[in-house]
Amino acid sequence: MMRMPDSTTPAPASVADPASYRALRRAPGARHIEVIDQRALPHACMFTRIADADAAALAIRRMMVRGAPLIGAVGAYGLALALDRDAGDVALARAHAALDATRPTAVNLRWALDRVRRVASALPPAERADAAWREADAIAAEDIAINHAIGRNGLELLRDLARRRSGPINVMTHCNAGALATCGWGTATAPLFLAHTEGLPLHVWVSETRPRLQGANLTAWEMAQRGIPHTLFVDSASGLLMRRGDVDLVIVGADRVARNGDVCNKIGTYDKALAARDSNVPFYVALPSPTIDWKLASGDAIPIETRDGDEVLTAVGRDDYGQTSRVALAPAGTRAINYAFDVTPARLIGGLVTERGVARSAEWLSAMFPDEERRYA
Amino acid sequence: MMRMPDSTTPAPASVADPASYRALRRAPGARHIEVIDQRALPHACMFTRIADADAAALAIRRMMVRGAPLIGAVGAYGLALALDRDAGDVALARAHAALDATRPTAVNLRWALDRVRRVASALPPAERADAAWREADAIAAEDIAINHAIGRNGLELLRDLARRRSGPINVMTHCNAGALATCGWGTATAPLFLAHTEGLPLHVWVSETRPRLQGANLTAWEMAQRGIPHTLFVDSASGLLMRRGDVDLVIVGADRVARNGDVCNKIGTYDKALAARDSNVPFYVALPSPTIDWKLASGDAIPIETRDGDEVLTAVGRDDYGQTSRVALAPAGTRAINYAFDVTPARLIGGLVTERGVARSAEWLSAMFPDEERRYA
Repeated sequence: MMRMPDSTTPAPASVADPASYRALRRAPGARHIEVIDQRALPHACMFTRIADADAAALAIRRMMVRGAPLIGAVGAYGLALALDRDAGDVALARAHAALDATRPTAVNLRWALDRVRRVASALPPAERADAAWREADAIAAEDIAINHAIGRNGLELLRDLARRRSGPINVMTHCNAGALATCGWGTATAPLFLAHTEGLPLHVWVSETRPRLQGANLTAWEMAQRGIPHTLFVDSASGLLMRRGDVDLVIVGADRVARNGDVCNKIGTYDKALAARDSNVPFYVALPSPTIDWKLASGDAIPIETRDGDEVLTAVGRDDYGQTSRVALAPAGTRAINYAFDVTPARLIGGLVTERGVARSAEWLSAMFPDEERRYA
Repeated sequence: MMRMPDSTTPAPASVADPASYRALRRAPGARHIEVIDQRALPHACMFTRIADADAAALAIRRMMVRGAPLIGAVGAYGLALALDRDAGDVALARAHAALDATRPTAVNLRWALDRVRRVASALPPAERADAAWREADAIAAEDIAINHAIGRNGLELLRDLARRRSGPINVMTHCNAGALATCGWGTATAPLFLAHTEGLPLHVWVSETRPRLQGANLTAWEMAQRGIPHTLFVDSASGLLMRRGDVDLVIVGADRVARNGDVCNKIGTYDKALAARDSNVPFYVALPSPTIDWKLASGDAIPIETRDGDEVLTAVGRDDYGQTSRVALAPAGTRAINYAFDVTPARLIGGLVTERGVARSAEWLSAMFPDEERRYA
């Protein structure tokens, strides 16, 4: 079992993600960050400067940045930005609350905000901002290290598959649990990127992920950037692809994991897990430990974010003139429901790929994180 | 068990679909037909005149008309149109082959073409065209009668549900097995339309059905036309909706049914059946008997139509200027797979709603159609 670096160790250079893009970056000493505006991908890769806490909150709320680990890091920097302006107790509490309210599902956001607040509030106001920036940097660096460790643990699963068959390994993923959802490597994608780097033959099935199309927009783009063969499919083709025997393994990310191993993730994850079980395809969830909500006994209690029905009534893409355009799909006046996440029960999950290893059960997960488990027991 | 009218009886007036639109119509005595160009729905309802066999073939191939029963009827009229021009044996064979090649999955098309050919080829060439028009009219009229009978049989299921609960019955459907897919009433929708007419409280969950969005474009439009409350959702929300207890019954159509009860239908049907089983939601398939392929022992042998990947890489809708516009969803150069159908194994299906009753097993289905079953045994 791999031990994690303690909380203030930056990621060693050897685990740095070699991707040519970074969803989040901070120049040395800068008192602002830059993020990729993911709403413009895959047609344009544009960086936006975030120089105050309001901009950080807006970037999360408007989904300029998304993905549980990345949201956590941007939230942490948002709190540092707030403290640069006003490091008093009232301002700290207000900024924490404002950032925490931006998205309801991911537990990493609250985890990162609490962590920065804990460090800052233990210090006199004059020292808080610098400490908050350091803590946010540490959160970002740890995220990269955690994802690299997830990648190494997931890589073993892929190597096993490669040993047992000829031809490329066919891996299905859903939504984007990629480098763009994190500070580097991604969670579900880290094993794929490491496998590709070491020359394992690989083919990735990318589900488009309606309504926001993170698979078509982001995961397909990441695979293309790294030269990994991949094929896009509509979400409802998952069952057929598995039944045809065209999928060797499914790996997805997570927005929140309950102590019993239930996984809250992008809408459609549950449907894919059902299809995997029916065709005996191993189904894995890649998750950094900050995604685990140890206070939550089961997934049934996870609040499911409902977003604007307009996302379902429309699709956004690039039109013939190269402009980003939104087209209406349904008759005017149609009502739509837009649950952003679903909960996959632990019984459908073959393993939870964490930075400390692959947990095959809830008990295994608790044993893997005795420190965390004890804290909330 | 309901007896069917014999093959030349037109539908009695009492089963006429009261919808204000008809996917297919023929003016009395006219030697052409008119069809709704379904590619323009839901934003415009335009009729196109089909005056020769090539136009009929193109209308099917380009999906101006779609839906297994409607394709069958348009194919039958296509053969009549061909015989108007040349009623010789060679022309008949050529037109039959050309129309049969337009879509590979639906068995109704072949069934309807064979039926018109059988009638025509038994006659001297001079009498063939008139006989073909009569036979095509009979196929269309029977389709309406069959769907009405399906509706009455499915209505019993809904009445049962209504008796056991208060509040609206929540029915989920997929793709469009509506009036637009047939000559009237639809298959999966016939029970819903009859239930709504008799005042049963009803709410319909409409899946958008990527990539061609027949749910968002067509089923939502049909529900709105008839005033039935409905809500659109992305395909991958099926599992969550059922797990939440928001769905009382699923009913879908079929493109081809094997003798063992396996059902080939729009891609995603299988995923919905898996979700229904996991949440104990009854899953029904509405099908007219011409959809049953008695020669086929199981669904494994059904060829799955693969359509252009471009349908997956794009979405078509109405832009801000009111124009139909196609937007690109994925990075340029992305590869996509586009299976149009999947096969739902009989074990996941609670019942097959036919014009003669609800069959709960393959044996039941055979017993319900002893004439057909014997012919291919």
